[in-house]
Order: sequence, then C-alpha cells, then structure tokens
Amino acid sequence: MHNAFFIGITHVSTLWIVLETHHSTELATKNRLVKVECLFGVSVEIQIWINDCHLCKHWKLQRPNTQDQRPKTQDQTSMPSPRPAFLFDLDGTLVDSVYQHVLAWREALEAGGIRLAVWRIHRQIGMSGGLFVNALLRETGHTVSAEEAERLQQLHGEAFKRYVSQVRPLPGAKELLDYLTNANVPWAIATSGRLESASLSLRLLGIEHDVPIITRDLVRHAKPDPDLFLAAAQKLNVEINDSVVVGDSIWDLLAAQRARALSVGLLSGGYGREELERAGAYRVYNDPADLLLHLDEVGVRTSE
Amino acid sequence: MHNAFFIGITHVSTLWIVLETHHSTELATKNRLVKVECLFGVSVEIQIWINDCHLCKHWKLQRPNTQDQRPKTQDQTSMPSPRPAFLFDLDGTLVDSVYQHVLAWREALEAGGIRLAVWRIHRQIGMSGGLFVNALLRETGHTVSAEEAERLQQLHGEAFKRYVSQVRPLPGAKELLDYLTNANVPWAIATSGRLESASLSLRLLGIEHDVPIITRDLVRHAKPDPDLFLAAAQKLNVEINDSVVVGDSIWDLLAAQRARALSVGLLSGGYGREELERAGAYRVYNDPADLLLHLDEVGVRTSE
Repeated sequence: MHNAFFIGITHVSTLWIVLETHHSTELATKNRLVKVECLFGVSVEIQIWINDCHLCKHWKLQRPNTQDQRPKTQDQTSMPSPRPAFLFDLDGTLVDSVYQHVLAWREALEAGGIRLAVWRIHRQIGMSGGLFVNALLRETGHTVSAEEAERLQQLHGEAFKRYVSQVRPLPGAKELLDYLTNANVPWAIATSGRLESASLSLRLLGIEHDVPIITRDLVRHAKPDPDLFLAAAQKLNVEINDSVVVGDSIWDLLAAQRARALSVGLLSGGYGREELERAGAYRVYNDPADLLLHLDEVGVRTSE
Repeated sequence: MHNAFFIGITHVSTLWIVLETHHSTELATKNRLVKVECLFGVSVEIQIWINDCHLCKHWKLQRPNTQDQRPKTQDQTSMPSPRPAFLFDLDGTLVDSVYQHVLAWREALEAGGIRLAVWRIHRQIGMSGGLFVNALLRETGHTVSAEEAERLQQLHGEAFKRYVSQVRPLPGAKELLDYLTNANVPWAIATSGRLESASLSLRLLGIEHDVPIITRDLVRHAKPDPDLFLAAAQKLNVEINDSVVVGDSIWDLLAAQRARALSVGLLSGGYGREELERAGAYRVYNDPADLLLHLDEVGVRTSE
C-alpha cells in the first residue's frame, strides 16, 4: 500500500515526530522526497514543502546505513532532550573582535607578500588557521609552504596584539552565560583560535577556569571540521545532537551540520542574515543579548 | 475591449518596449498590476511575474501624474542611452577603507560615551554623518545635540587618520576607471565623506583634478538621500536615468532608487549579496575588477 501526499511544515519538530512515530527502516532523499517504511508495512512519500529544514538534513545524515564517525555515548535514536547544552564560538559570538582580527590578517598577509581585499578576509575568518590560509591563497592563486603558513599566523598574532585593546565583550554575552549557569544549562566554548589569543577574550568575559574551553591546539582539525564542537560536547558529557552550536560565521554553522548539532547564527560577526541561514542556521539573532531574549525558541524553557 | 493575461518576463527591457510601444496614457500600479491604455482604445492588464524588476519600479515612479523633483535637462520619456554614465561611491567601492572607517567610528563613539557593537556600525557606514549618528543613537536609545554629533564626527576623523596608512585601492579600481575614460564613458565620484578624507582616497587611486567629485560638503543631504548622485549626474551633464550608480552599501542603492538611477552593488564593502539585492541592486559583483569583466551586462558594449 502506497500513499503520496504533500505537507507544509511550519514547525520542524512535527516532521521529527512523524519520522520517529513511523519507526522508519529506510529513508531515501532526492529532491526533498522522503520515503518512510513503517513497521506495519505502510509506505509513505512526503514531499517537503519548505526550503531548508535543518532537522530533515539532520535526519537524512543519520539514517541507519550512513557511515557515522561520531563518538556514541548514548542511544542516538533518542529524542533531543528538553534542555540542550550550548557550544559557543568565541570571536564575533561572545566578544566583538572580528573586525580587529580581519585587519590584523590584512597586515599579516601584506607583510607576507599577499595582497587581498579586506572583505574577502572577513568571509574566511573563523576557519582553522591552516584552511584559512589555503582558502585565501586559492583566491589569490598563490601557494605557500607549511612554514610560510605558520609565519603568516605568527604575523597575524603580532598584528592582533596592536588591536586587542579595542576588543570588547558583545552586548549580553556575560548575562547570557550567567543565565545558563544559573539555570543549570551546560555550556562550553569551542574556538578556532589558539589558547594564547583566546585567553585575552576569556578574561574580558570574566570566564572562570572551570568552564570547558576547546581551542585549536586541542583538536586535529578546526572549523568547518566538526572536531571542536564534538570535543566540547564530550567534555560536557552531553550528546552532540542534544547540543546547540552558537556562532557568527558560516564556518561555525557548517561545522555544526557536520557534527549533527542544531545551530544558531548571530549577526554580531558582521555576516548577513541570509549567509547564516544558507549555511544551516536553525535561527538567527542579533547578538548574545537577543539570543538571551529568545532562549525559549531554542529549547530552554525559561518559565520552568 | 479588455484583455487580461499573465506574462513571465525574463528580460526586463521587454516590458519597457511593450510600454513604449503602447504609448501609454495611464499607468496604475497596485500589487504589481500594471494597466495600460493604448491610443487606439485597447486596454491591457499585465500581471508581472517577477519579484523585483528595477525598471518596473523606475517606470512606475516616472508615470506622468507623479510629483517629480528631479532636475529636467532632457525629455524624460526617452529610452535609456546605449552607453550609460557611471556614478561611483568611494569607500568600499573604489578603495578598501570600510573596515578601517568602522573601527575608527567605534573608537570615536566610545570616546563620546556610546558603546556600540562593531557590526552595527558597519551596517550604517556610508550614510551621511548626521543620519549615521542619528541611526546609531536610535539603536542605543541615546540622544545627542548637534554639537555632540559634530564632535563625534571630528573624533572619527582623528581616529581614521591612524588607520589610513592601511587603506589600499580595491582590485581593478584603477583599471575600471581607466577603461571607462578610454571608452569615452562619462563617470564621476559621489561620496558621503567630506573632501578632506576623500582626498586621501583619491590620491591612492591617482585621480586627476578634472574628474567630477561630489563630496558631502557640496550637497544639502547625503545618502540615502539622492542629492549626491543627482549632483554628480548634473556635473557630468547626463540624465540621472541614463546613469548607473555603483556602490557597496545599501545606502548607495537606496539613494540610487530615490534618484531613479539603475544601481550596481559591489561585495567589496563587506555586505552580503542578499542585502544589496534587497536594497535594489540591478546586479551585484565582487569588486571593481569583476564589474570591469561584466560591463556589457550594465550597458557598456565592449565590442563596439
């Protein structure tokens, strides 16, 4: 028996429940056509009516025949918990440092003989240093050795020190972290920056030593690889698919997709709303203060 | 006799020709419904099938019963000329100075007791100084007197001097201007900046004294008011609706709409493509080098 029908989904959890309810054993997606085989032999085709549904992609990538490299600490077919953990990016998400990093990179690249317009550097900020240099070089047609790439990163670090006195916490950053701590919501920080430069930002936020911080030094690959967020979830002892990644750059959101976490984009890094939505953001807010006002939209029930 | 039909327009000049062909004497627009009365008594309704057609808006705003304040130097019902004039913004469009201006404004505002995140300043850059300060204050809830606003602008000018050694021409800027000059395409510069700061950028571009430059000092209102572009077209002795405004910020593109000019957005100021398209850009390119490669798309026939 086959039924074909069209549904318009306004609340994504609906689809999640439908799929869970049907105990699907097969899930094929092509052109947003999802086929679900039920335990009692009814086959259903669902043509998804929305443009980008994070949970659909999420589900598709989690189907049983997918090669899944994630560490498995719990039963992965379990429903998301009612109170998720938060994995925060740092620059542009909690501290207002993106534009200073961008100009520091411009200086470093020029000192290394590479001329690149500032907006192109901005679009790559938040990647791992190595991938960042590769991406910039792809745009310029240049090639550099590993030693030169390392030197560019050193030059950037030196230039950034001249800008760091201009860096401030983003509006609501401290309040958001305090709120989560008081509400017993687990949170951690996962940054593509190295410990040295991250320390300056952590001091600005008044972050204590007992908060889990994952820096570039602690994982093999940085964003857009998922390693930083996976390590942060592991350190919190929470499931990655019970976690919400909060970031300002498309690299945070792409890494969140690869880690199978839900993601929230913040405009405070200077990217456009549509760029963040296209990179997979479940929701986009202005800054940490705006996220704090809308925590109920991302699973934190403020009235409980 | 009345006919109602739907058309899908893929090439906007089609609509223009249709309207011209029918010698319309009445043009009513509501919800993109255009009614045309022909000389020989046939009435036609056209439901436009595209989302944003710059030329439709252009036509709608030019209908005979519209109050039109623009200076009239030619018959305004004439077709656009085959070789348009170009009216360039300066910061972020020809020189790579937006991020430096943004950080200089952050310093100036903080010195004036106003804390504002850098991305919010970026979103307002390119406006007239007065409107810029008003817009920022709207976001902070602050109010300032005219004297304080003037002082903030002075503080910005002083801070920018510390960043100006980092400013470079954008890729292809000089080549684009040289190409237009050699092809006898008229061009001018219209910037919300004052003559003092604009002079530094003009020197970087090697621009001679005989190029028409309209700065903030020369008009009553800066962008998003249309005055700068209207004055630039007048100085070139060209029709504003034969002109293409080239800018990197939404304020350039909004000012272009208000001036009834076609506009081209460049990503080189760090705004997202969708932001520029939504503000009315006819086309969006990366930077001046990319525009130079696509001049035929904006009416400059490179093969002639």
